Amino acid sequence: MTGVLCAQLAPRVADLPHNRELSVSAVRGAAARGAGVVVLPELVTSGYRLASAAEAASVAIGRDDPLFAEWGRAAPESVVVGGFCERGADGLLHNSAAVVDRGELVAVYRKTHLWDEEKSLFTPGSAPPPVLDTSRGRIGVLICYDLEFPELTRKLALEGAELLAVPTNWPLVPRPEGERPPEVVIAMAAARVNRVAIACCDRSGEERGTRWTEGSAIIDREGWVRAVADGSGTATAELDLAASRDKRLTDRADVFTDRRPDLY
Amino acid sequence: MTGVLCAQLAPRVADLPHNRELSVSAVRGAAARGAGVVVLPELVTSGYRLASAAEAASVAIGRDDPLFAEWGRAAPESVVVGGFCERGADGLLHNSAAVVDRGELVAVYRKTHLWDEEKSLFTPGSAPPPVLDTSRGRIGVLICYDLEFPELTRKLALEGAELLAVPTNWPLVPRPEGERPPEVVIAMAAARVNRVAIACCDRSGEERGTRWTEGSAIIDREGWVRAVADGSGTATAELDLAASRDKRLTDRADVFTDRRPDLY
Repeated sequence: MTGVLCAQLAPRVADLPHNRELSVSAVRGAAARGAGVVVLPELVTSGYRLASAAEAASVAIGRDDPLFAEWGRAAPESVVVGGFCERGADGLLHNSAAVVDRGELVAVYRKTHLWDEEKSLFTPGSAPPPVLDTSRGRIGVLICYDLEFPELTRKLALEGAELLAVPTNWPLVPRPEGERPPEVVIAMAAARVNRVAIACCDRSGEERGTRWTEGSAIIDREGWVRAVADGSGTATAELDLAASRDKRLTDRADVFTDRRPDLY
Repeated sequence: MTGVLCAQLAPRVADLPHNRELSVSAVRGAAARGAGVVVLPELVTSGYRLASAAEAASVAIGRDDPLFAEWGRAAPESVVVGGFCERGADGLLHNSAAVVDRGELVAVYRKTHLWDEEKSLFTPGSAPPPVLDTSRGRIGVLICYDLEFPELTRKLALEGAELLAVPTNWPLVPRPEGERPPEVVIAMAAARVNRVAIACCDRSGEERGTRWTEGSAIIDREGWVRAVADGSGTATAELDLAASRDKRLTDRADVFTDRRPDLY
């Protein structure tokens, strides 16, 4: 079993020093609780409601930034997946996620499906999301709106992902009483149809007029929500990630082998 | 606005005369209530727990069977989509759905993703599901387990379906308290990520030891459940089907144009 933890933080917009400390502290706390996989929100280093590309650039960091080593030192036995505002070697800005495994930066993924105004700030990634063999299992990485493209969740599942780690910033949208946040419904379905666990780490608080859903959810391979977070709290669950490799629903039904790629 | 109705019937296994009358009566009742689109369960003519291919064959009908004209006479201004046990011209059996539009049989779809023991009874369809321009809008047809393949719901949405009509038989499976049936969660997500309405018509009752979910649900293009059915009741909702053509989430986000087919 693997302890999965989502830290539903409230970064301060455009305050890199604060957010650096906030994220390191959260990772340290997660490790103290025995989390094997720690997921942080999207753009945890920069906040979300950046007013301009110039403001985004002012808090962008490269993948050689010491932050990732700090996450690693804070949780030397864990995998940490967190969002950051990336300045590429060419100066372009990206909405990215870093994966640190036992202290080492092993991958950076640049969000490929930019949401709304992000299109004014960031350059979309040109490479598909990674699926990584980590010390805690085979982990795929998506960022927020990426999760709403079933082609992509299917692709990562077909590539053997046992867990999708998904840093998000979900702006609060209306929903009928008693319903889960719509993004969680989408994640539950993606988990169930692919038999893959999903950990979505949302953020908390309010930022320049935007309220957040505070909808972090850890979802098992059956598609059921095993943990959620309140406010600036955490969601934690113990998951059998290797179970995601079994795609059978019954002895004669299997979500992968029952596909009809001849038809789509 | 289009009135959509799902008739959550309890057919009797292997009792074609009974089920014929049951389905015609349900269609007549739906028309009397002004339903423009009527969805009946999967295999409504035969029941589901057929003990053998021989028993299935004993209640199989061809697409030239008078039943479809009876549905048409019962609802001469409506579109009717219902499941039936089909005997093909070659004698093979299929788990099929008929589409009758204003009295005329306009399509038969043979289920392409067979569930579990269905593989012992039926031959899977070799053609993808249809998307039809009907008198009530552009309608795609799926049967039960088909809905759990996001490739397929995406395909039908990309082909312009405004509504997916889905005859189903959902065997009752355990779920956490307070959760919707898992198949409904999957349908809600499919609706939302594709901005397409979905009407799932389940069956009711118990059959040879199998209990059914009784989970019929009419879901709008936002992914929210607008109506469910109790027991052998109906689910009805008025939907603006043409709204499904608009794939925008915001002025700068669109579930179709934001796709990255270069990556998957």
